[in-house]
Amino acid sequence: MTALARQDRGQETQASIQPLVELTRNGMAAVNHLILSRMGSEVEMIPEVANHLISSGGKRLRPMLTLASADMFGYQGKGHVNLAMAVEFMHTATLLHDDVVDESDLRRGKSTARMIWGNQASVLVGDFLLGQAFKMMVDVGSLHALGVLAQAAAIIAEGEVMQLAAAKHLTTTEQDYLAVINAKTAALFSAAAEMGPIIANAGEEAREALATYGTNLGLAFQLVDDVLDYGGSADNLGKNTGDDFREGKITLPVILSYARGTEEERRFWREALENNQTDDAALQQALQLIHRHGALDDTIARARQFGEAARGALAPLAANAQKDALVEVIDFCVNRVN
Amino acid sequence: MTALARQDRGQETQASIQPLVELTRNGMAAVNHLILSRMGSEVEMIPEVANHLISSGGKRLRPMLTLASADMFGYQGKGHVNLAMAVEFMHTATLLHDDVVDESDLRRGKSTARMIWGNQASVLVGDFLLGQAFKMMVDVGSLHALGVLAQAAAIIAEGEVMQLAAAKHLTTTEQDYLAVINAKTAALFSAAAEMGPIIANAGEEAREALATYGTNLGLAFQLVDDVLDYGGSADNLGKNTGDDFREGKITLPVILSYARGTEEERRFWREALENNQTDDAALQQALQLIHRHGALDDTIARARQFGEAARGALAPLAANAQKDALVEVIDFCVNRVN
Repeated sequence: MTALARQDRGQETQASIQPLVELTRNGMAAVNHLILSRMGSEVEMIPEVANHLISSGGKRLRPMLTLASADMFGYQGKGHVNLAMAVEFMHTATLLHDDVVDESDLRRGKSTARMIWGNQASVLVGDFLLGQAFKMMVDVGSLHALGVLAQAAAIIAEGEVMQLAAAKHLTTTEQDYLAVINAKTAALFSAAAEMGPIIANAGEEAREALATYGTNLGLAFQLVDDVLDYGGSADNLGKNTGDDFREGKITLPVILSYARGTEEERRFWREALENNQTDDAALQQALQLIHRHGALDDTIARARQFGEAARGALAPLAANAQKDALVEVIDFCVNRVN
Repeated sequence: MTALARQDRGQETQASIQPLVELTRNGMAAVNHLILSRMGSEVEMIPEVANHLISSGGKRLRPMLTLASADMFGYQGKGHVNLAMAVEFMHTATLLHDDVVDESDLRRGKSTARMIWGNQASVLVGDFLLGQAFKMMVDVGSLHALGVLAQAAAIIAEGEVMQLAAAKHLTTTEQDYLAVINAKTAALFSAAAEMGPIIANAGEEAREALATYGTNLGLAFQLVDDVLDYGGSADNLGKNTGDDFREGKITLPVILSYARGTEEERRFWREALENNQTDDAALQQALQLIHRHGALDDTIARARQFGEAARGALAPLAANAQKDALVEVIDFCVNRVN
């Protein structure tokens, strides 16, 4: 059954990341091998810290996007494996720095590197991985790919600073917030998906299509993450529920609830997020308000719209297994909340 | 009078950075202009933080090395200006991250960015500048230059992690310490000096000569910095005297004093640097021990040796104004302690 057929049957079928995983299985084995060899250093602490995060069971969606988008256009070399590794290292470096910036104790239910090795090691190992990523890009030798990834690196950092400046400001608008996640999340999804057509010399239309796909997939992915942080639509609170709340992050569910809230509710939000009153009782109240205003459903609706834009970007391209898998990943990302 | 003539007359003449400043004046004006334009962002906090450090009166030695080493081989384009900016951004990014890692309150007598805007902003603005540096290198279009600078970025971070792992360990050997400063300081001096012959296509011998010059100049520079942190050879305590001591940094003056110390002295050093007993009285005692064992003079002697190696690396190259200026900078760096 193709992804499109699955989609047509609506939500009763389970969109899956599995087709993408299978199509990129060999390539990802090569990427993982390369990751292990390039995070090595005589300085022991570096592989320890890097491995903590790299082996922590992330889905590795970004490098899979790079591999599939190269295969999609018949790329035959090894450069996509190298670029996929570079993308994953950039992502890992960002996570290491993010945890320092957000003062996070947990990521994916595990202690963050900074809790084990300290903020210092997290900052420096992130820098090391970023250096290794750029070295790898240089080895690939595509200035075009290098330019896109260097641009993404600057934009990601810019987005993080934007988020830092907006932190605890409930006057952040939906538009402001979309600008933040466009930079801090969507830029790397976009660059990762763009790598394929660039290295396969698939032409400007193909590059533009994959870049647009990646941007919109990244936006949808981040919005769903924001929803999951408040337990998802089904009220099934996960172990990380409320992390964003406790860190005072202003995400779309909060922005919508605040905008739609009474004066008293707004006082609550300011007390909680601007003045750090984020104990469990406050989290329960936040969840009540978020549900009262339908803020999770509406955030998911926004994610679906971006998902549709991602799907539309790929529509003009010739059908093949990679395209089907990339389309199915959109539904997988959006339906994670169910 | 040439630098060589100055050197022959020994220390009674004052070696100066002025010839290098004058030779690179036009180029540095272009570099400064580029720095201002590329540190800009709609995200206000970015230029604020970047400007704090960039305008804080550093000597900009590294970008001057890049400009002079290109002019030295008759380079005619604009790429050296762009690469010099990239080098300075890499350096600034490193300083921003260093201050976070070292928990420094002051740099060059001014509050560090992290004291004003917080660790978070320092980490992220550093990341932004690094991204901008790589974008600029891509614009220049030399994969060779990109490879050298990417390698330097990874090595610098590796050196910082090494230093972090060695922090507060008095068993650090002189050899260990030289490996740290080779990575954290000399690698960027080397890359900066190497940029010129690379972009001027001056050939492998010229590249190797400038790279060796840069490495050894960087080692000498760092050792003299370490000496200055303990007030220099002339007992003239500056306002930053003891910063390394208070941060528990194991630098060469300490390593030599510890190695030459009595058992009682070694207990003092462990108490001070491993257990953070670094008040003013402890600093006074540290200074006494350092002077008793001639550790500053011997560190300066090491710096002079590296300076000689830097001079030797340039010796085979044809004489011109740039070469003279680069040779004079060696003496300038080493003689800063007098």
